[in-house]
Amino acid sequence: MAERVPNWLKQRAFLTPDRPALFFEKSTWTFAQLYKRSLSWAAELEREGLKKGNRIGLLVQNTPDAVCVIHALQQLGAEAVLLNHRLTTNELMWQLEDAEIAAIVYDPVYQQTVDQLDDTFIRKDVTAILSPIEFKSRDEFSLADTCSIMYTSGTTGKPKGVRQTYGNHWWSATGSAFNLGLHENDCWLCAVPIFHISGYSILMRSVLYGMPLRLYTHFDENEINQALKRGEGTIISVVSAMLSRLIETLEGSYHPNFRCMLLGGGPAPKPLLETCAEKKIPVFQTYGMTETSSQIVTLPPEYSLTKLGSAGKPLFPCQLKIDAPPCSEGEILVKGPNVTAGYLNREEANQAAFTDGWFHTGDIGYVDEEGFLFVLDRRSDLIISGGENIYPAEIEAVLLSHPAVREAGVAGVADERWGEVPAAFIVEKTQVTIEELRAFCEERLAKYKCPAYFVKLESLPRNASKKLLRRELKTRFKEEK
Amino acid sequence: MAERVPNWLKQRAFLTPDRPALFFEKSTWTFAQLYKRSLSWAAELEREGLKKGNRIGLLVQNTPDAVCVIHALQQLGAEAVLLNHRLTTNELMWQLEDAEIAAIVYDPVYQQTVDQLDDTFIRKDVTAILSPIEFKSRDEFSLADTCSIMYTSGTTGKPKGVRQTYGNHWWSATGSAFNLGLHENDCWLCAVPIFHISGYSILMRSVLYGMPLRLYTHFDENEINQALKRGEGTIISVVSAMLSRLIETLEGSYHPNFRCMLLGGGPAPKPLLETCAEKKIPVFQTYGMTETSSQIVTLPPEYSLTKLGSAGKPLFPCQLKIDAPPCSEGEILVKGPNVTAGYLNREEANQAAFTDGWFHTGDIGYVDEEGFLFVLDRRSDLIISGGENIYPAEIEAVLLSHPAVREAGVAGVADERWGEVPAAFIVEKTQVTIEELRAFCEERLAKYKCPAYFVKLESLPRNASKKLLRRELKTRFKEEK
Repeated sequence: MAERVPNWLKQRAFLTPDRPALFFEKSTWTFAQLYKRSLSWAAELEREGLKKGNRIGLLVQNTPDAVCVIHALQQLGAEAVLLNHRLTTNELMWQLEDAEIAAIVYDPVYQQTVDQLDDTFIRKDVTAILSPIEFKSRDEFSLADTCSIMYTSGTTGKPKGVRQTYGNHWWSATGSAFNLGLHENDCWLCAVPIFHISGYSILMRSVLYGMPLRLYTHFDENEINQALKRGEGTIISVVSAMLSRLIETLEGSYHPNFRCMLLGGGPAPKPLLETCAEKKIPVFQTYGMTETSSQIVTLPPEYSLTKLGSAGKPLFPCQLKIDAPPCSEGEILVKGPNVTAGYLNREEANQAAFTDGWFHTGDIGYVDEEGFLFVLDRRSDLIISGGENIYPAEIEAVLLSHPAVREAGVAGVADERWGEVPAAFIVEKTQVTIEELRAFCEERLAKYKCPAYFVKLESLPRNASKKLLRRELKTRFKEEK
Repeated sequence: MAERVPNWLKQRAFLTPDRPALFFEKSTWTFAQLYKRSLSWAAELEREGLKKGNRIGLLVQNTPDAVCVIHALQQLGAEAVLLNHRLTTNELMWQLEDAEIAAIVYDPVYQQTVDQLDDTFIRKDVTAILSPIEFKSRDEFSLADTCSIMYTSGTTGKPKGVRQTYGNHWWSATGSAFNLGLHENDCWLCAVPIFHISGYSILMRSVLYGMPLRLYTHFDENEINQALKRGEGTIISVVSAMLSRLIETLEGSYHPNFRCMLLGGGPAPKPLLETCAEKKIPVFQTYGMTETSSQIVTLPPEYSLTKLGSAGKPLFPCQLKIDAPPCSEGEILVKGPNVTAGYLNREEANQAAFTDGWFHTGDIGYVDEEGFLFVLDRRSDLIISGGENIYPAEIEAVLLSHPAVREAGVAGVADERWGEVPAAFIVEKTQVTIEELRAFCEERLAKYKCPAYFVKLESLPRNASKKLLRRELKTRFKEEK
């Protein structure tokens, strides 16, 4: 029997109605206010005929309205399909159709994109809520129900919807609290997108812990540095690129109540970690992904200096192993109640991804003799650019659809600002200019996925079985520079 | 599918091996040491032929050895039957037979009691462990498995074994952490018996949180006051009688890191709470029982003064309702994943205790308009004496077995030191002295259950259907005094 727990936001608004739930610019929402507004939104969606089990796309920014709608979907029992607003119309349509969404709720800044979507689902402007209508909320959530869906690609290049259940989010929040602790004065800064698991999971922790979050529409290093110096946040989630920018512009030091710089989104450069150690900034390296509903491995506080560069040990409810002999490199396998219930409608991919409950991350790493994980490489070919995952196969597919391209290979190359950016390597069928290829990509791919470099080669490096050697491409790129 | 999580102590010893797990007198055990010793004990028990699923009685004091054995049973997968050492041999035998135990592990101070037990189960002295033997521990615990069994009586007077699963303890610890928070410097003082849920639950939180506990064999108000003044504990679990003694002898104030006086075990006298408020002692009133695996309702910190006398609101994963119209008195019903999986081998009692997942506590209370619980009376006839539950029906049954007694009634009466003590009211069949009745009870009942007063009456107060009116007895007692 699936465990049932009280309706999260309803329970929180009942237990601690007057505690702050959300800070945004100069405004504050209490849990009672957040709940009330979420109920209005749930009623609005119900009035449109939407109901429990429907999938609803969210094309939103980090705003209080978006937070309310995310909670409204939980109140309604609908599954939230979180959309990355940097995707092109074609990419969006693919996900919306795959998820068979019944409606889309969007921020008006994306009006133009939404107008281009050629389907018949209900469209709702996230800022345009009608006057409150009565909504009868459920008393309980079932932890087995799907709460949110986020698309990721993978080595095949075909995006897959990762199903995150209420249980996944619950256990993730529990594992995090048992590791990082939970203080009365905690406030989690959220300057990462709420459509990614990094941001969405902060929303869930806020409600479960009864802890406020401070929301930012965009990441601005000066604004965050000021907030942390004033003591306006005790924890913040960042990726390497954000941390670099914070450190570069930081003058003086953070407020003493700042206790955790949670650093995810791919391996961090060691010099950056060393600088943080010197400046006594409490960096907690962590490893996680959409499929693990946020962190699954985090460096416990007491090891932050002695195990510099390690992502740490699993959270209490989680397990980790390497598909290789002890202390040698291999694929990272993880297990735990925060690991996805599976990809949406992808029986084959699910069978391939799981062995006896262990999830194959595709990432490469090793575990040292004391049990600390060191991540060497994300999914061999995955490119992480400013915290966004980019899948080479997806870009290669676009390039190969150009009539002048015979072969295409994409690999990540180092970039000072973003960590990595994609570089494209092509073999021409007929003559084509780089400008034309760039324009072709920009029409079809989110901006952050468009190759920063195009290199023409006579042939692509391949192994005996003709498999593309993307690591070779990186080496060639360095040689060319 | 029941949720599975890593083997608790194994995982904790892996994650934070060097953190202190247990302080006792002048000694410290780390989690690694506690795990190692527990494995030795598990091996010892396995060598005796004991295995997963066996029930093993524990007749122990609050000692590090006992803590190790409790963990050893979890490593083995055996179910721990926690025995109250204040019970008589007959009472113990009844529980041991009901639970069909395979072995008993006992503290040598109870050697004499154990020698009197007339059965053939294995007997192990908790201090007499052999040299370490290899033990292969399980990787995972299933949250559906029974972890511990504790006997309580009830209105029928026949003790019932309350099954607490790993999941019950897990969710209890989670609900507590989400409410009380979890600090890096936390240390929970345990001067309540580990054979009661109040103490046992501290052992579980310690492992799940990675938090040390400080164990005391006996409660001594001066020793605890000194420890709290020196900053040796941030949280302590107490019952009213303990809190009174602490306050009476306290000079000066506690260390600033002391943050939570968790007060359970029955309603607290208001003057005591007011004194604590004056002295700025952070009292968290709480309501719970063996069947809820410790707290289920706790007053959140911000209401400790404005809702003085209330037990608070449910923990996050839990629910509460009163079987009566809004704001009026009635039976307290509770629900949550920390509520017992049921009484051992008591199909009928389980059916009576649960309605649609709601557990009937038998206690009386009301919920105010803001949702705060006020407990008026524990199980109408339950007597709580110094934190121990005493069930009148059990004592009445003993009295009625005396040939000179025609009718017997027992009720709790006020006592300065213990809160309440049992008073017996009897109607004679033939003449009998009070001394004789007292001796008769002392042979058959744990000392704390023996009536402090014996009153002879012509008849007992009964309602129309001849049901004994125990509240009437209390009134008669006051009048007689």
